[in-house]
Amino acid sequence: MNAHILTIGAEILAGDILDTNARDLAVAFRRLGIAVTRRVTVADDEERIAEAVRDALATAEVVILTGGLGPTPDDRTRGGVARALGVGLRLREDLVDTLRARYLSYGNRAMPPGNLVQVTLPEGADPIPNPLGTAPGFRIEHGDAVLFAVPGIPVEMQAMLEGDILPWLRAHRPVRLLLSRSVRTLGIGESELVARFGSLFEGLEGVEVAFYPQTPGVNVKLTVRGGEEERERLDRAVRAVREAMGTTAYGVDGETLAGAVHDLLRRRGWKAATAESLTGGAIAAYLTAVPGASLTFDRGVVAYSNRAKVDLLGVPEALIAEHGAVSEPVARAMAEGLRERSGVEVVVAATGIAGPSGGTPEKPVGLVHSAVAAPGGTRSWRSTHPGGRALVVKRTVRTDLNRLRLLLLEAP
Amino acid sequence: MNAHILTIGAEILAGDILDTNARDLAVAFRRLGIAVTRRVTVADDEERIAEAVRDALATAEVVILTGGLGPTPDDRTRGGVARALGVGLRLREDLVDTLRARYLSYGNRAMPPGNLVQVTLPEGADPIPNPLGTAPGFRIEHGDAVLFAVPGIPVEMQAMLEGDILPWLRAHRPVRLLLSRSVRTLGIGESELVARFGSLFEGLEGVEVAFYPQTPGVNVKLTVRGGEEERERLDRAVRAVREAMGTTAYGVDGETLAGAVHDLLRRRGWKAATAESLTGGAIAAYLTAVPGASLTFDRGVVAYSNRAKVDLLGVPEALIAEHGAVSEPVARAMAEGLRERSGVEVVVAATGIAGPSGGTPEKPVGLVHSAVAAPGGTRSWRSTHPGGRALVVKRTVRTDLNRLRLLLLEAP
Repeated sequence: MNAHILTIGAEILAGDILDTNARDLAVAFRRLGIAVTRRVTVADDEERIAEAVRDALATAEVVILTGGLGPTPDDRTRGGVARALGVGLRLREDLVDTLRARYLSYGNRAMPPGNLVQVTLPEGADPIPNPLGTAPGFRIEHGDAVLFAVPGIPVEMQAMLEGDILPWLRAHRPVRLLLSRSVRTLGIGESELVARFGSLFEGLEGVEVAFYPQTPGVNVKLTVRGGEEERERLDRAVRAVREAMGTTAYGVDGETLAGAVHDLLRRRGWKAATAESLTGGAIAAYLTAVPGASLTFDRGVVAYSNRAKVDLLGVPEALIAEHGAVSEPVARAMAEGLRERSGVEVVVAATGIAGPSGGTPEKPVGLVHSAVAAPGGTRSWRSTHPGGRALVVKRTVRTDLNRLRLLLLEAP
Repeated sequence: MNAHILTIGAEILAGDILDTNARDLAVAFRRLGIAVTRRVTVADDEERIAEAVRDALATAEVVILTGGLGPTPDDRTRGGVARALGVGLRLREDLVDTLRARYLSYGNRAMPPGNLVQVTLPEGADPIPNPLGTAPGFRIEHGDAVLFAVPGIPVEMQAMLEGDILPWLRAHRPVRLLLSRSVRTLGIGESELVARFGSLFEGLEGVEVAFYPQTPGVNVKLTVRGGEEERERLDRAVRAVREAMGTTAYGVDGETLAGAVHDLLRRRGWKAATAESLTGGAIAAYLTAVPGASLTFDRGVVAYSNRAKVDLLGVPEALIAEHGAVSEPVARAMAEGLRERSGVEVVVAATGIAGPSGGTPEKPVGLVHSAVAAPGGTRSWRSTHPGGRALVVKRTVRTDLNRLRLLLLEAP
């Protein structure tokens, strides 16, 4: 089976946004063994959309459109699809109440009457509910082909893809699964990682291997063709790769670094806290993005000013005066101070220069002093991270949480 | 003038990589007043490429292809273009020495003979030198249209775009600059915003208006055609739209909500702090992502546990016992407690249920109590944010910082 992806929107054509929907759709389709053979982007213009839909239906068995389902006059996807199929548009009375209720739930505003266009669908269309927004999508079968239209807002598209489109395709089309799993690593370069694979490749017969560099880290993606009967081969490959990667592998598939840290904390019955300066709350935010984080994360302090480092973390003023706020002694004092005050077992601390200004020859932008205070004592590190402000923060978050993870693995 | 962008490559169709080339080309073309009216991606297949080129030349004045110019058998762009134009491929003797020298410069390897395909171009093509790689690009004029082909590696594409393609277009085509600016709004729905435009549209003659929904918020993009002489018309439109949007407009162009908050704090000579529960540091991280944030942001507390709320923010234990941690009194106490302890002028506090678990019928997932403590007193809000954990956090961050912004605008 093959699919065409049509993304509608002037903002994509103009380069204002990256077309992440087309990427995400391609990845999801591939898992069902559906190959995307063409991607097209056109503007919110009824004739252009109709033309693209006609072309797609001529050669693709699955056609999906994203975008152009909003309530404004430049949302033309409903009309474009109707024109391509030679059918009319019909107000769907059965959807009006849901739409009205959705509007009311957003701060008690009554729905502007013009918004009824959102529930005016091509004849023959089955609506696809939108759990996160006002615009429903729709599905139309046309000969042997099926066409889906969903909103362009990525979270809405994703929810409707997973909640409706993929289940429908699995139920109504002879999809042939392609199974993929990933081993996620941190602290090893891509070429070193590929080198380690030398001895492994023979044990991975029938398994495709791909390397995806992250910032930072590398994901190793393993894929087998043929559906569930190949599951055991894939799982064996995952175990072999994990083994070969040792502690540089922090998780598989959707497991995040934060999740790995929480798991290790939970196993020990420990709680963690964060004492941040340059990262400004990003370490805490990354850790608390995981559901259930409150079981193992107790508190965080963002001590951006020197005063806050003294007040909230008990860093001695003299230490800051002598070594500067970005220094090993201050990083250690931040971690130890919060550990003592909070009573948690482990504290991660980071102080550094995120830039773009504030660097000096001795303490350049990207310099970070980090520390982890734990029952066995405190360890500290000096790093220099490349990249601009956002990347320095991101690399500090991941690198320091990986240090915490390794310490949790090793600690007695 | 209009352009079609054709990106060639299985890795784009499969969703392994994002098509940043198409985005970067669109942005560069737009600055010359060349509108991209269609983007197409096909695989490395000679007939598919030829078909896409024929379609593009039928309606576009500028056609650009990226990708498929490498030395391997799956690089089919040269053949696809030749087939579309009905011309042959010819080994360009004049380019062989350069190619050979380039190979030698890469670690002294002799060039594999198969690599001569890289300098085997469609008849009538002018080569475009590649300063960063081995594959030259090419340019062919066809009737009134012009076609460019460049490699898919983004740095090579970008170098050849800037070094050759854009200068050629400026010299040989009547380019007409296009200027754009954006007004960024928060706290007003897209359809309400469009309604407010009713009275404005007549004052915006010659200005194109487009609405881009964010999560949350809407950006209003204004565009004029005609280059620098139209700058005043565009700036006037920006002022008119800002005026009409009132305080819902928080910035223009690259100005962020966090930047707007810092600006308002700086003007008053105030400092801010954050007292977070469900957002887990995300409010502080968002505020400190702005360069220079340390001038106006003093500290943040992530009081995830009840104990931390008592210890670090001075929330009375009895208050939590009586009302629960997610309640208006606790949100107010968090903000007021940190304001008193830190000595800063304003504190934003948020406590809520991010989910996916922890909700009850009275306090569902997505419920957030927020407060801002300021010199004029404390204000509080109750919100229910839709979406999963990440979206609830994101919406809380933006909504609460917008409340802080509005308070900073209004406060005496």
